[in-house]
Amino acid sequence: MSKNNVDGIPYRTIKRLPQYRAALADALEAGHTRISSSQLAGVCNVTASQLRQDLSYFGSFGQQGYGYDTEVLLTSIDRILGIDQNSPMILVGVGRLGRSLLSYPGFAGKGFQFVYAFDSNPELFGMQLDGVPVYDVSELEQRLADQAIDIAVLTVPKEAAQSTAELLVAAGVRGIMNFAPIQLHLPSYVVVENVHFSHSLLTLAFQLKPRRPVTL
Amino acid sequence: MSKNNVDGIPYRTIKRLPQYRAALADALEAGHTRISSSQLAGVCNVTASQLRQDLSYFGSFGQQGYGYDTEVLLTSIDRILGIDQNSPMILVGVGRLGRSLLSYPGFAGKGFQFVYAFDSNPELFGMQLDGVPVYDVSELEQRLADQAIDIAVLTVPKEAAQSTAELLVAAGVRGIMNFAPIQLHLPSYVVVENVHFSHSLLTLAFQLKPRRPVTL
Repeated sequence: MSKNNVDGIPYRTIKRLPQYRAALADALEAGHTRISSSQLAGVCNVTASQLRQDLSYFGSFGQQGYGYDTEVLLTSIDRILGIDQNSPMILVGVGRLGRSLLSYPGFAGKGFQFVYAFDSNPELFGMQLDGVPVYDVSELEQRLADQAIDIAVLTVPKEAAQSTAELLVAAGVRGIMNFAPIQLHLPSYVVVENVHFSHSLLTLAFQLKPRRPVTL
Repeated sequence: MSKNNVDGIPYRTIKRLPQYRAALADALEAGHTRISSSQLAGVCNVTASQLRQDLSYFGSFGQQGYGYDTEVLLTSIDRILGIDQNSPMILVGVGRLGRSLLSYPGFAGKGFQFVYAFDSNPELFGMQLDGVPVYDVSELEQRLADQAIDIAVLTVPKEAAQSTAELLVAAGVRGIMNFAPIQLHLPSYVVVENVHFSHSLLTLAFQLKPRRPVTL
């Protein structure tokens, strides 16, 4: 998908920040208090000049001949990404995938927390799954009325995804992590990040297969 | 991650093919036997010229003033992506996420099929989950010895991911769809597609937050 820049920062730069962050956290854990741009870039599979260019959108980091102080750069990227802030979010679609996300270990450490889950299956209403209460999706707007919740994770079946996404937007959600295998069509101010498993798998498989001439 | 071209085809073009495919399948299902490049591009959030350039790597498609025959283009992209071929694959890591992928509805229709699952938990050995037998991960090389299996889906915990990925490569796997939140370091001929949920969420959240000046 072609994505727009955000405040002059290229989308691809934004996509790389979490990778830099993860690499810095690993380096710090391994006791590397200092890291060079070529080391950090190498771990992230980018060039050192790409790394320096990405960081230049946010300030001046590191010193010629010294590299970066790992902890300082990590803290800076955390601030850039807003990891120091709490981000409540909701899950919509409590199937197998949705349930696995409720207990996904990588979210909480980055400030993300599920506060509600929604589904259309009455058997789930009132349940607590991993400490998250499940409500009727038809109560979505009402449940979110008093909450400032920007982010929804959408794991409903493909057929329900567009209409559910519209409900989310009506309830004030501005960002959707979409796992349903369709392209959502929403107002342009709504940010959608797609996670399409089968697209990733097709991209992977393409790179493995011997090329065959394509004829019509 | 910066990715290399494949046979002169940009990685970003390859990434977009599954999106074009999905949009064409939807159009065909909705009865649109013909589609213009601007219609198809619009659904996929790219420009018409980007779409035409992407397709130009694979041949000559469509006619000026007519557009594309939806079914012909869909069939062509299916052949380009190898969807007409069977792609057996294995799952390594039968936790909640892994189990949800075993029954993920989007894989089978694209030729992908799990043939084995592996885990280190003895309680799972010998079980059949969604028709897929679960074996001891230490038997990986032996179980794959007689099989031409190129693709593994890796859903083990972060700490086990690098060593398990090395086992996979030793067993002949050449492509890994990696859900563990680390950057794998493997021989350059191995293709890795990362699916990092928390990176997607951080990218999403960044685009929603008001920009704050970053100071060190």
